[in-house]
Amino acid sequence: MADDFTLTCPIPISRYPHVVMAHGGGGKLMHDLIERMIAPTFGGPLAESRHDGAMFHMENGRLAFTTDSYVVQPLFFPGGDIGSMAVHGTVNDLSMCGARPLYLSLAFIIEEGLPMETLWRVVQSVRQAADNAGVQIVTGDTKVVDRGKGDGIFINTAGIGVIEHDLNIDPRQVRPGDVAILSGDIGRHGIAIMATREGLEFESHIESDSAPLAAAVQQLIAAGIRIRCLRDLTRGGLSSALIEIAEAAHVHVRLDETRVSVRDDVRGACEILGLDPLYVANEGRFIAFVDPADADRTLEILRQHAPGGESAAVIGTVLPDETPGRVTLRSAIGVTRNVDMLSGEQLPRIC
Amino acid sequence: MADDFTLTCPIPISRYPHVVMAHGGGGKLMHDLIERMIAPTFGGPLAESRHDGAMFHMENGRLAFTTDSYVVQPLFFPGGDIGSMAVHGTVNDLSMCGARPLYLSLAFIIEEGLPMETLWRVVQSVRQAADNAGVQIVTGDTKVVDRGKGDGIFINTAGIGVIEHDLNIDPRQVRPGDVAILSGDIGRHGIAIMATREGLEFESHIESDSAPLAAAVQQLIAAGIRIRCLRDLTRGGLSSALIEIAEAAHVHVRLDETRVSVRDDVRGACEILGLDPLYVANEGRFIAFVDPADADRTLEILRQHAPGGESAAVIGTVLPDETPGRVTLRSAIGVTRNVDMLSGEQLPRIC
Repeated sequence: MADDFTLTCPIPISRYPHVVMAHGGGGKLMHDLIERMIAPTFGGPLAESRHDGAMFHMENGRLAFTTDSYVVQPLFFPGGDIGSMAVHGTVNDLSMCGARPLYLSLAFIIEEGLPMETLWRVVQSVRQAADNAGVQIVTGDTKVVDRGKGDGIFINTAGIGVIEHDLNIDPRQVRPGDVAILSGDIGRHGIAIMATREGLEFESHIESDSAPLAAAVQQLIAAGIRIRCLRDLTRGGLSSALIEIAEAAHVHVRLDETRVSVRDDVRGACEILGLDPLYVANEGRFIAFVDPADADRTLEILRQHAPGGESAAVIGTVLPDETPGRVTLRSAIGVTRNVDMLSGEQLPRIC
Repeated sequence: MADDFTLTCPIPISRYPHVVMAHGGGGKLMHDLIERMIAPTFGGPLAESRHDGAMFHMENGRLAFTTDSYVVQPLFFPGGDIGSMAVHGTVNDLSMCGARPLYLSLAFIIEEGLPMETLWRVVQSVRQAADNAGVQIVTGDTKVVDRGKGDGIFINTAGIGVIEHDLNIDPRQVRPGDVAILSGDIGRHGIAIMATREGLEFESHIESDSAPLAAAVQQLIAAGIRIRCLRDLTRGGLSSALIEIAEAAHVHVRLDETRVSVRDDVRGACEILGLDPLYVANEGRFIAFVDPADADRTLEILRQHAPGGESAAVIGTVLPDETPGRVTLRSAIGVTRNVDMLSGEQLPRIC
């Protein structure tokens, strides 16, 4: 695989085996990197005009705008890499606003000495993920920092999407009686990263769930599901997302642990690593709070989105609460406990 | 000054003197950082809803979208800091598209161990610069990387602006006969950074020119100036900007060196440091290519924008060219030479 990339990298690797400071210096090398590698890969506004930004026409209406930086280590892991994650994460944040993702910006902070081939693999992965998610990379930036002042490559993407419906999707819309629906099994992204980082081998191969959620969300909206709130489960996992929503909505979310799908191999890995799957990061799962009358139709739609969607389930219900921000979990053996936000950190640099 | 910040920092510095990994971990510490420091500082959509992005209404029309990461060292320098630069740079890129800047995203990549007070100073500087430039920070992200894997703090901003006119501002619009107008004196930003970095003391205090260009550009547009192209002079300086435009437009730009304003102290510092002011970075200067009939009115407007604008001048003219992308300079003693793009790098991490 490395050889294929070496063959096609538009910057001659024999001459520039590694990224050097001048690739971010505003001179000829940076110009070459953009003109030969970045612009041809993404085309469109990024390639057509040597401008400081992209321009496009938008119809009258609501827009969503979001940003995330990606500092994941390792850069490549089973089921994804920092490039695909940088697209999925931002596409998913737009989707959680109920928006149809359209345009992404792409900014690299590269550490001097990064193999040129690694950069090329990441750039291609960004392109492929953008194509799959139906978004266009329209503007970008490249900076290079001295060796020892970065970590290979960091990526920032910002995204713009259009909101094409009248729903008010907002955590504060969640109300007693609503149901909480989880879009699939949890914990795979975090475990895939940890396994790679620690050099662990599990019985089965665990791949990240990293994926774009735009199609599933657009289908829910098109079906007229009365969505109150959507939230993707990234840093902090399912538990943090639920606590944030419960706090914003001043409600009590009661979970049924037996309904939360965790694959056996993921559960086993969590036990070995001492992790609680409720807190493990995901990059392709979300929680939807919907009107209870729409629960069945929501499940029907989510279950079409394989892999993972087949285990979508109603995992909880919303109760009125005297103390805002309460999440409780009823375990398999019938014990109920509070779910708290982690004070420290479970898995650093997971995204 | 440090004491004032220490007193008002909303995160108790006695307890958290430095940023720790968990401030980016998705748990309680990150939540606190956002809820107590970031959200109250910026208010608006960033504070109102615990959402994954911002939403706002836009009228039918053209938008501009741009991004830049900022990795400048040192973080604080005469005339600015990484926070104000992160606002000015992106506001200026939108302005160069002819857009009125409206919304910015703000993403931090913090190195573990950054003094909490430094983060607080940067956050406040971002807010102040945003207020001055008339833009709102509407969405953000915070990541923390391990000690030795970053360099204090990196910032990414992306921006959205609206294009409220019918001009087609684009390098390819530049045509023979147009004049090139420089908005002020050049070289101050690069020299201010270098002086701080190298611990140099010059006879006079040289401050960065870092400033938002939105007001000047909006005034040019409102005055009906036939603008062909705008470009701010950042990495690579005046020379790189002109070469890129000359290449895109397939023209020859002929400069008159005597018209390019460089302050005496900046010129002296350039001589000591062995730098050519034409290649030194700026953060508050731009070049405008306009119809020759509008040159005087353009100068009149630019000269109102102190400090620096009083030395705005027509520095060159556009000639047809057989070899695309040619920039030549006629020196004070009447010698004409080609201006080339730097192949290496003059000043690393200047922005």
